[in-house]
Amino acid sequence: MLSNHLQNGIETARLVWSRLPNSDDEALDEVGLSKKSDGSRSESLDYEVIENNAYREEQAQRRKLMVGYYVGVKWFFALLIGIGTGLAAVFINISVENFAGWKFQLTFSIIQKSYVAGFLVYILFNLLLVFSSVYIVTQFAPAAAGSGIPEIKGYLNGVDTHGILLFRTLIGKIFGSIGSVGGGLALGKEGPLVHTGACIASLFGQGGSTKYHLSSRWLQVFKSDRDRRDLVTCGCAAGVAAAFRAPVGGVLFALEEVTSWWRSQLMWRVFFTSAVVAVVVRTAMGWCKSGKCGHFGSGGFIIWDISDGQEDYSFEELLPMAIIGVIGGLLGALFNQLTIYITYWRRNYLHKKGSRVKMIEVCLVSLITSVISFGLPLLRKCSPCPEVELNSGIECPRPPGMYGNYVNFYCDKDNEYNDLATIFFNTQDDAIRNLFSAKTIHEYSAQSLLTFLVMFYSLAVLTFGTAVPAGQFVPGIMIGSTYGRLVGMFVVNFYKKLNIEEGTYALLGAASFLGGSMRMTVSLCVIMVEITNNLKLLPLIMLVLLISKAVGDAFNEGLYEEQARLRGIPLLESRPKYQMRKMTAKEACGNKKVVYFPRVVKVADVVSILRSNEHNGFPVIDHTRNGESLVIGLMLRSHLLVLLQSKVDFQHSPLPSDPRGGGKPIRHNFTEFAKPVSSKGISIDDIHLSSDDLEMYIDLAPFLNPSPYVVPEDMSLSKVYNLFRQLGLRHILVVPRASRVIGLITRKDLLIEDNENSETVELQSTSSSTAR
Amino acid sequence: MLSNHLQNGIETARLVWSRLPNSDDEALDEVGLSKKSDGSRSESLDYEVIENNAYREEQAQRRKLMVGYYVGVKWFFALLIGIGTGLAAVFINISVENFAGWKFQLTFSIIQKSYVAGFLVYILFNLLLVFSSVYIVTQFAPAAAGSGIPEIKGYLNGVDTHGILLFRTLIGKIFGSIGSVGGGLALGKEGPLVHTGACIASLFGQGGSTKYHLSSRWLQVFKSDRDRRDLVTCGCAAGVAAAFRAPVGGVLFALEEVTSWWRSQLMWRVFFTSAVVAVVVRTAMGWCKSGKCGHFGSGGFIIWDISDGQEDYSFEELLPMAIIGVIGGLLGALFNQLTIYITYWRRNYLHKKGSRVKMIEVCLVSLITSVISFGLPLLRKCSPCPEVELNSGIECPRPPGMYGNYVNFYCDKDNEYNDLATIFFNTQDDAIRNLFSAKTIHEYSAQSLLTFLVMFYSLAVLTFGTAVPAGQFVPGIMIGSTYGRLVGMFVVNFYKKLNIEEGTYALLGAASFLGGSMRMTVSLCVIMVEITNNLKLLPLIMLVLLISKAVGDAFNEGLYEEQARLRGIPLLESRPKYQMRKMTAKEACGNKKVVYFPRVVKVADVVSILRSNEHNGFPVIDHTRNGESLVIGLMLRSHLLVLLQSKVDFQHSPLPSDPRGGGKPIRHNFTEFAKPVSSKGISIDDIHLSSDDLEMYIDLAPFLNPSPYVVPEDMSLSKVYNLFRQLGLRHILVVPRASRVIGLITRKDLLIEDNENSETVELQSTSSSTAR
Repeated sequence: MLSNHLQNGIETARLVWSRLPNSDDEALDEVGLSKKSDGSRSESLDYEVIENNAYREEQAQRRKLMVGYYVGVKWFFALLIGIGTGLAAVFINISVENFAGWKFQLTFSIIQKSYVAGFLVYILFNLLLVFSSVYIVTQFAPAAAGSGIPEIKGYLNGVDTHGILLFRTLIGKIFGSIGSVGGGLALGKEGPLVHTGACIASLFGQGGSTKYHLSSRWLQVFKSDRDRRDLVTCGCAAGVAAAFRAPVGGVLFALEEVTSWWRSQLMWRVFFTSAVVAVVVRTAMGWCKSGKCGHFGSGGFIIWDISDGQEDYSFEELLPMAIIGVIGGLLGALFNQLTIYITYWRRNYLHKKGSRVKMIEVCLVSLITSVISFGLPLLRKCSPCPEVELNSGIECPRPPGMYGNYVNFYCDKDNEYNDLATIFFNTQDDAIRNLFSAKTIHEYSAQSLLTFLVMFYSLAVLTFGTAVPAGQFVPGIMIGSTYGRLVGMFVVNFYKKLNIEEGTYALLGAASFLGGSMRMTVSLCVIMVEITNNLKLLPLIMLVLLISKAVGDAFNEGLYEEQARLRGIPLLESRPKYQMRKMTAKEACGNKKVVYFPRVVKVADVVSILRSNEHNGFPVIDHTRNGESLVIGLMLRSHLLVLLQSKVDFQHSPLPSDPRGGGKPIRHNFTEFAKPVSSKGISIDDIHLSSDDLEMYIDLAPFLNPSPYVVPEDMSLSKVYNLFRQLGLRHILVVPRASRVIGLITRKDLLIEDNENSETVELQSTSSSTAR
Repeated sequence: MLSNHLQNGIETARLVWSRLPNSDDEALDEVGLSKKSDGSRSESLDYEVIENNAYREEQAQRRKLMVGYYVGVKWFFALLIGIGTGLAAVFINISVENFAGWKFQLTFSIIQKSYVAGFLVYILFNLLLVFSSVYIVTQFAPAAAGSGIPEIKGYLNGVDTHGILLFRTLIGKIFGSIGSVGGGLALGKEGPLVHTGACIASLFGQGGSTKYHLSSRWLQVFKSDRDRRDLVTCGCAAGVAAAFRAPVGGVLFALEEVTSWWRSQLMWRVFFTSAVVAVVVRTAMGWCKSGKCGHFGSGGFIIWDISDGQEDYSFEELLPMAIIGVIGGLLGALFNQLTIYITYWRRNYLHKKGSRVKMIEVCLVSLITSVISFGLPLLRKCSPCPEVELNSGIECPRPPGMYGNYVNFYCDKDNEYNDLATIFFNTQDDAIRNLFSAKTIHEYSAQSLLTFLVMFYSLAVLTFGTAVPAGQFVPGIMIGSTYGRLVGMFVVNFYKKLNIEEGTYALLGAASFLGGSMRMTVSLCVIMVEITNNLKLLPLIMLVLLISKAVGDAFNEGLYEEQARLRGIPLLESRPKYQMRKMTAKEACGNKKVVYFPRVVKVADVVSILRSNEHNGFPVIDHTRNGESLVIGLMLRSHLLVLLQSKVDFQHSPLPSDPRGGGKPIRHNFTEFAKPVSSKGISIDDIHLSSDDLEMYIDLAPFLNPSPYVVPEDMSLSKVYNLFRQLGLRHILVVPRASRVIGLITRKDLLIEDNENSETVELQSTSSSTAR
């Protein structure tokens, strides 16, 4: 019943884009498009270069030196983003590992005397950390909740969600994820780090935070959405590189999962950013090696190094590995589906009741997590330490306060260990290290692994969508490596002769669950290799990922796509839908009325038109001498608002100031038209005009985009989609078929050498003339 | 003097695109665009979907099952490409290593008695192999010469060079590279393997080779250039994956270096292909482990495994590493520049004299190479074997006939070794393994390394551009690792206390030279990591690559771009040139006349127009009832030729068969319009029409592309360039400004759910109406 109800609700959410004009207020709020909804209004970004006069003037003034400065600043920013994200990651890691380290040290020392007291201290410690996290997020930075990857994906796809790239979001994300991860919730710090990297990049992109007076004039060279998009891409890659210490994986993640447009020049810069992150993190870890950072820095640069594990595999093993892939696909798809339900429920019912409810909810989840992770191992009977392992350098039970396998927890004898505590009552990083570890065959019982799998899976689903910064990578690895190791145990028992490590299967399981849930392939594969330093397993990881992604795709979309949909972020996929082939551009426009502006327009008309609709782009029509009408360009709402606010371009005459439309001195700087990132911009209601102002005119010609992309009315929608998606546009004008062709442009017309000598260029462009 | 002359010649070649209509025949021939030039004529590819009636009919007929079959075949082909390329790579490797193994075994056994006899046998053996290679290439498959990467890059950029993807080229490439690599020339088999992969992919794309009756009807589903492009991309990745046993590197190589358009769906398939290659190669190597393949399979899956080498690095080492980067940039740029000169000279003077000269040239190069590689080590004094190394498992001198460091060659005593012979008188793979090897400090003298560097660099330059299949990866690694190890020697002497391995510096040197010559970053980095299995050096490789690429870029373009330019392959870079910002679309068309067709055209007119010019696209104009003219689409020359050849669509009446232009039954199958890959297609001179035929008419409406992309005449050329390049177009129509706007398409208009229910779709598309 409930499930059915939710399913309907989700269908509603899916279709809501099509029902926007019906103004079903609740649905609108849900997808974040209602005007009344505070802070979650999303708007399309402009990746197209608006070649108006202001832009041309700015381009003409730009000297060689300026171009060099511009390129230099781009690289300098890449460096800064790398350093900033690297330091943020180190800071988060140091904090989390120290909080967690203190917590477990304290608890272990207390349970020597009383398990009840230890239990209470453990719960309180977790509660405190989690509460600090949820408090920061709800009171100070609401956009910092969740992983942030769907929003960043949306941003790079062309949709700006308000608030995601602000300075306060950055601060909330950093401190919030310290609290939530340190507090032992079933979530990770990797997703939030991607968001952190993107925030850092965006802040550099606008030359610092203007609100907190941290901006610098000479760094404000990037005012277009296009430049910011490049920086945010670098930031994403830096985030992944810092989170997993996987620089190549970071580049690929940015390429495969996040960005929608990609240029090879950008790859080169993204790569540099990732390299900087790797150097920063490695240097910091080297510095921490001597114990200056408390519990941090013990693991080495490779997070879960299993390079000494299984080297080879036989054909018989491919079947159990394929089974892992299938399990991963199924569990991953189920995870996505369950999180859809729970997120939908939270957004529509629970979280509407205010931030107090959110706080209580998170504290309850923390309580449940603490009780389960402490309580369940208590119920588990301890096993005796294995004899054979003693030679391999692995101690059993592990020395107190240290990291290692074989935790002695609530055991009767000293030479016993509690296998459930080894994975449950531990930091996630150490639990994964234990699950991946080689030379520890038969450490875990099937019963413990199964218990852990069920409980942790439930906790991960329950935690998903609460109002704290939360990544899904590490929980995914935990879940996957548990069932992977379970399968590995059976394989070890079945093929007795082969040299099989359970840890290898745990790794494959982790890859399969992530593949089944997030549906990434190449980047995930490289990340898995980089975090475990075992290149030889690459083909196996590939195989498992292919299977799990294929199985998952049969049920639903990837986690980030589903979440983006639920959050009302209208992602455009890279491929047009099948039925678009049968539709034309004109059909897609529907019968809605296009609102025109004449070239010279009365201010009062502008104001009334802007008030009367929500369009963001207006075609501008002019009339030639012989009375023919001509579309001379597209005017953006945001640019009109800038003109209305500054008033300097108002004129008394209703005639164009200069009939040739360009000779007029531009009183606007190009940068004035740039919209600050993640902000709502100016609204028409914020502008106050006197009645004299309203009687004046504006000549729009110098400010409009004189050549927006156009398509003929009967072009198939799939071709229009490709144009829109590939070039990252915001508006395409649909026009009637042309009456004549002035020329054809072919490859040869575009082969122009980059010469200083402009005469040669003239010669080239006019003489290369065969239409091919 | 000579250099100056050549420089001028190259400038000529650079500018030749702009001078095409001047019909300077020699220059035209040089860039391969003259009609008279046999076999090297390049033509633009059509990546745009031509939505004519035939296509629409085909789409309408295509059932769900057919779509599924289509997708299934795509994946099946990816599998086949992977298996095919993997097997080709294994075959080449087995052959090369066995030929080389026999050669060295024979030589070593003979020089026990007489060095002169050994010398002669060595020279003859090499000469025989190299001659077989050049004979195959010049007599049978001229397109197989060189690495093939510039041509493949051109193909994926949209330019088809005749002959590069034929079955004979594939055969020539495989056997030719066995001869040239086995014959000990200073070239590699990696570039040719990329070409091999692309050929295999292309053959699958057309369902087998029609010429050799190997085609299969049911596999001929991919008839569009777009589908073939995807397959060739997979083939490229498979080639790299097979050559370096580096699956991730293969994907990235295809992404970064080769393809010009990329979709994330494709990434997923490319990834699968690479994984298949890895599995095939690994399986074959496992099978060969038992000695069934002679000398092959001893190295393991990782080609030059240095995972036991240097693990860490200190800050002091960054300076020498940066120096390696600078050297790599300088030497790489010099290599590119020298090869430009030598290629230009070869193409314009030497190779014009026929294939006999080509054969003599290659044999001479082989002779010189043999003499140097045998003779130089003879002049070198042997060094005594080091004492300390004996414990580390490395034998000195190495056992006869085995692989290893410390070759005893022309030494007086038994416990001596010849360091120059270790690298020079050896297969390239083993030489690189020795250069990369750890725990062999002070093995090489600076003098030997320097001698080798100078001689091998000269040989590599000399060999480049000869008429044999030749890759530049392995020579680049040889050159780079030599000076890298040289720097490493100084570092070891300077920082005595640190744990430094010369082999690590050799690896960095190899990366830096490749970076300085090929200017790749991400893919090269991943390839270097995958071939050496040392993830921990990743940040260092990144650093070195960044520096060497930046230094190299200051001098010239990357090797493949320069070579593509010399071969007349007009690559379009991803970014428009700077001066395009100031030009408009109209200026780019120049004042050339556009040749129109009316909708219904007389056959005689078609023939005379096709004869009178070389245009490949013709706008078609129709007149509405009120006499207004209207551009109804674009007709391709190749499609017109198909119509002329088949004659079934000829009609007697000069009126449109159906005024609505679409009701007419199509007598052409969509696949008939597909041009076979790498062929010249039909020429107008091949078509014979009777005088009756010439008096008839054709209605072009069902066959034209009804909605080619259009741009307004005053759009800036940089925006036009982006449109052309991003969408992979062949023609853009330049039209006058529109007189009115029918509608605006925004993101919301393109958000259509992929539903079965087409009514819902209708509803959605008309109701989502706010212009944003």
